[in-house]
Amino acid sequence: MVQKSTPAKPAPDSTRRSEKSRRAIYGAALALVGEVGYQKTTIEGIAARAGVGKQTIYRWWASKGDVLMEAFVDLSEQAAEAAQPGRQYAIPDTGDLAADLKAVLRATVDELLDPAFEVPSRALAAEGVVNEEIGRRFVARLLEPSLQLYVQRLRAAQGAGEVRPGVDPRIALELFVSPLAQRWLQRTGPISYEYTDTLVDYALNGIAAPGDGKSRIG
Amino acid sequence: MVQKSTPAKPAPDSTRRSEKSRRAIYGAALALVGEVGYQKTTIEGIAARAGVGKQTIYRWWASKGDVLMEAFVDLSEQAAEAAQPGRQYAIPDTGDLAADLKAVLRATVDELLDPAFEVPSRALAAEGVVNEEIGRRFVARLLEPSLQLYVQRLRAAQGAGEVRPGVDPRIALELFVSPLAQRWLQRTGPISYEYTDTLVDYALNGIAAPGDGKSRIG
Repeated sequence: MVQKSTPAKPAPDSTRRSEKSRRAIYGAALALVGEVGYQKTTIEGIAARAGVGKQTIYRWWASKGDVLMEAFVDLSEQAAEAAQPGRQYAIPDTGDLAADLKAVLRATVDELLDPAFEVPSRALAAEGVVNEEIGRRFVARLLEPSLQLYVQRLRAAQGAGEVRPGVDPRIALELFVSPLAQRWLQRTGPISYEYTDTLVDYALNGIAAPGDGKSRIG
Repeated sequence: MVQKSTPAKPAPDSTRRSEKSRRAIYGAALALVGEVGYQKTTIEGIAARAGVGKQTIYRWWASKGDVLMEAFVDLSEQAAEAAQPGRQYAIPDTGDLAADLKAVLRATVDELLDPAFEVPSRALAAEGVVNEEIGRRFVARLLEPSLQLYVQRLRAAQGAGEVRPGVDPRIALELFVSPLAQRWLQRTGPISYEYTDTLVDYALNGIAAPGDGKSRIG
């Protein structure tokens, strides 16, 4: 796992100790949920594996769901930082929407195929499918914020005249994001750069033959 | 649950008894997996709930995975038969691709929102996310055959000049099927007829502004 860059000013010893415990707890939580699943992961198990007392965990988090959610947010931030150090949390805007979407989806392909990400993510996603409360928190805390980056990029493209004004960006993004998500989650097909490039081309240009304007909309 | 139409010629008593047991076993398997999840569902539990001996189940199926998979195939067939009695297993071809896709997706919306379907389907889908063998069987036996119906319909539309010749139908169908699947599985947004109609319009016509042909492909 990539280390976060340390602050320029040295932190006091107690802060550094806390940071070290927090990292150990996140690592233990992600490893455990990947190995035994969400149901069988416990605060006790996380504490034992991280080498901290149970009370250390309860001081910072109310439940195992909270620890795990924070551990995933941290994992995603680490992955993003490793892919593009110091990057802004936005989809690049080079003025070429297709190229920008393809670049971000290729980075997502790399992330989905990374075992450090895949194993715990599958465990949390599976729990979210059957456990509505966990599912909704997973979406609100992790999935929706990243989807909103596509909304912003598509809105900018509408402003630049690249996307039709009548299109709802929140639905439009699903044309390329959801196929990749389903192939990964349900293993309905292979995942590659060529595949995500194709999704972007189809979503932007449509699959209908040119001039077949039967259901052309505003 | 809808009864299958009985054969015109009366079946012998032993066949009718077998059919009754088979239905009871399917019903018990689906109810149990919805209540306690895939992991905790056992052949013993299914047998007890169905009021049959364990050996009756083992005579017909090798494992709980086999029973459940068959129970789901049967559930899907019952749902399809209830929606359109005597229908062919094909997507209608009225010559209007958009209308045909919208009609099928509206029927899928109804199925996904039916609790009799939703609860056991979520349990099996969740297991498939973390259990690769179950996931792959679920796709091969249930998901991919229904996706192939879209492939056939899109191929016919290519033949009729409605869809661009260079488009890969197996990828193209994901532009409208996968968003619905993800909203259902991960609860990333509401599901409605208006939503699936919009997906079809976007997928056919694209979201790019007309004349923005930067990445127009063959």
